[in-house]
Amino acid sequence: MKKIGVGIIGLGARGYYMVEQLCGMDNYEILAVCDTYEDRTDAAAQLVKKLTGKTVMCFTDHHGVFSVPGLDAVLIVTGWESHFPIALEALKLGIPVGCEVGGAYSVEDCFELVKVQRETKTPFMLLENCCYGRYEMLVMNMVKLGLFGEVISCEGGYRHDLRTEVLFGAENRHYRLENYKHRNCENYPTHDLGPIAQILDINRSNRFVSLHSFATKAAGLNDYAVLHEDVNRDFVNYPFSQGDVVKTVIKCSQGQLVTLTLDTTLPRPYSRGFVVQGTRGMYCEDGNYVYLDTDFTVYDHFDWIKHYNNAEEYLKKYEHPVWEKFLHDGVRGGHGGMDYLVYNEFAECLIEGRPFPITVEDAAAWMAVTPLSAQSIKEDRTVEFPDFCK
Amino acid sequence: MKKIGVGIIGLGARGYYMVEQLCGMDNYEILAVCDTYEDRTDAAAQLVKKLTGKTVMCFTDHHGVFSVPGLDAVLIVTGWESHFPIALEALKLGIPVGCEVGGAYSVEDCFELVKVQRETKTPFMLLENCCYGRYEMLVMNMVKLGLFGEVISCEGGYRHDLRTEVLFGAENRHYRLENYKHRNCENYPTHDLGPIAQILDINRSNRFVSLHSFATKAAGLNDYAVLHEDVNRDFVNYPFSQGDVVKTVIKCSQGQLVTLTLDTTLPRPYSRGFVVQGTRGMYCEDGNYVYLDTDFTVYDHFDWIKHYNNAEEYLKKYEHPVWEKFLHDGVRGGHGGMDYLVYNEFAECLIEGRPFPITVEDAAAWMAVTPLSAQSIKEDRTVEFPDFCK
Repeated sequence: MKKIGVGIIGLGARGYYMVEQLCGMDNYEILAVCDTYEDRTDAAAQLVKKLTGKTVMCFTDHHGVFSVPGLDAVLIVTGWESHFPIALEALKLGIPVGCEVGGAYSVEDCFELVKVQRETKTPFMLLENCCYGRYEMLVMNMVKLGLFGEVISCEGGYRHDLRTEVLFGAENRHYRLENYKHRNCENYPTHDLGPIAQILDINRSNRFVSLHSFATKAAGLNDYAVLHEDVNRDFVNYPFSQGDVVKTVIKCSQGQLVTLTLDTTLPRPYSRGFVVQGTRGMYCEDGNYVYLDTDFTVYDHFDWIKHYNNAEEYLKKYEHPVWEKFLHDGVRGGHGGMDYLVYNEFAECLIEGRPFPITVEDAAAWMAVTPLSAQSIKEDRTVEFPDFCK
Repeated sequence: MKKIGVGIIGLGARGYYMVEQLCGMDNYEILAVCDTYEDRTDAAAQLVKKLTGKTVMCFTDHHGVFSVPGLDAVLIVTGWESHFPIALEALKLGIPVGCEVGGAYSVEDCFELVKVQRETKTPFMLLENCCYGRYEMLVMNMVKLGLFGEVISCEGGYRHDLRTEVLFGAENRHYRLENYKHRNCENYPTHDLGPIAQILDINRSNRFVSLHSFATKAAGLNDYAVLHEDVNRDFVNYPFSQGDVVKTVIKCSQGQLVTLTLDTTLPRPYSRGFVVQGTRGMYCEDGNYVYLDTDFTVYDHFDWIKHYNNAEEYLKKYEHPVWEKFLHDGVRGGHGGMDYLVYNEFAECLIEGRPFPITVEDAAAWMAVTPLSAQSIKEDRTVEFPDFCK
């Protein structure tokens, strides 16, 4: 097998984009596309035809995809709510799953996913593209080389102004709006937590032991509606549940802290707020800088502005081997190449029969942050972090 | 009265520096200096002689300072432990107090300070220089002008690599070492919390209602000792109490969160990690950038690196009036001028009989973070934040 035949379930903006990406990859063949909206399947099928000349099967019910001849895997790109139910069905049928990111809706769902994957041994991978971000991988590599010493504190965030995405969710048939109306939690933890969990050897020699989340009031969406007349007037005073900023602190069994920030309804530039601090060095995404004990002294500590963006220099010496090869071969795909890398890893693991670098226990732990944070905020207390490796 | 006669109590590095600063100011006359170490009082007296030609009185017991003829105020620059006892004595004697920053050792001390100040009506001001930092004041001004909309989330930190200061504390007669050996808390909250509290109208229309702190393991000092043979070998395995990074989340009655980071025993450049986010704009110290809804669109969100340090541009339009005047008159003094501004404010308020901008209730609330964080970490729970305005 040199390429995998896949069905793509869910064709919103992200699913359509995935169709486009996979059409340009040698190790994928799209056999089927599926969405409850027929206009979306039509558009996706036309795109595949245009880019590859091939005709794909179209479904408005995902069960149809499961029986497509030659299917090697399904890729789930639906709204957050249906990731688990569809994945569980596929796993039980022995169909490998690549699942887009998002938070879970209950801890029980996470345990069920682990249980079913272990029982069926069907391959399952969370397609966390940010584990393949160039700077995330730079930091992973520097940590592995011992340059940061022992890692003590990590921070991450999904700091992305999504006010229009949320407020025009109904018009765009996006699931986010309902989530912001009715939930208050760290609703999108894996982009930032995934790379951090890998750096901290979570589910290997380390694990998450407790979590506490805190939420601000919800005011960003209302204020945006006040100022923008094209927004549904109901939103001026709508009592959104989702706090504008959610802070989550996770304690690790080895004594580290992970601090996450969800920050999606206030104005700001995009940042994953990535900070990794060890006993001998650190990286900070805001400012894009590396600090190593061996390279700087206390005389450099102040007026640090001139060292902003020095991480670019460190790429020359410590680029991750995966990225070194990628740059050599020619960077492809969207989001700076990390989508290509995660899709490629999924296909190559299946083709070569290798285990996925992101296990089902990893996926469970990363996605469980969402229901745990909801519980912590609601009950105003620290909650125990379940051990999905037990 | 055009200048105030002061006694300076505590002549470590910070006190000696204060002596130097005040010698260059028109509204101060140093009458006395005091430290338990005679070599320090000698050095300070010589410095005053050199800079002003005047002879000051020297004391090794602070009680002597209280009876110096013509004394208008005492400035307390001792180790953290003795701030409160000395301040209380002075207030009870009716001697105005300017007190250097640091955390408290108990919530009761904070209540006692408020009680004694109210009973005696003796002026007391916490000399929080960072409330006069240029960028802190830029942000305060922009918030006041409504440019950030409603402020929802603030972050701050004391992120300062103090490994050598701590480890050579015994040699340098510095109080920090003992604190790091025996306490685990947010030990230095006011530099970052002060400006944030002012922005959030704490103790005015808003107040802190609860606090939760989390600490990492302590590994930074040990690892530094491992690599540096000049450090006392006992520190290689010394079980320091103070975690390398302490995260503190404070909830406000108006629904905002304040997140503080103490980060003083890992390698890094200096940062107060100042972030202020409102419904219409924000500022972030790491990257030194401003984002306003009116100035940027979603097309600017990614590849934000080119906007790093754009806060410099905003200074042209929104410089705080205090800084505008300061720049016009000529910036003076250390730490970029903010020390001059806070010392000047203290003197001018006393001379003009104006109330201090930082009240005793403010000082109590900001400094109380230290014992509250110690309790929260020890008991692994959220603690109620006392109301010092009651």
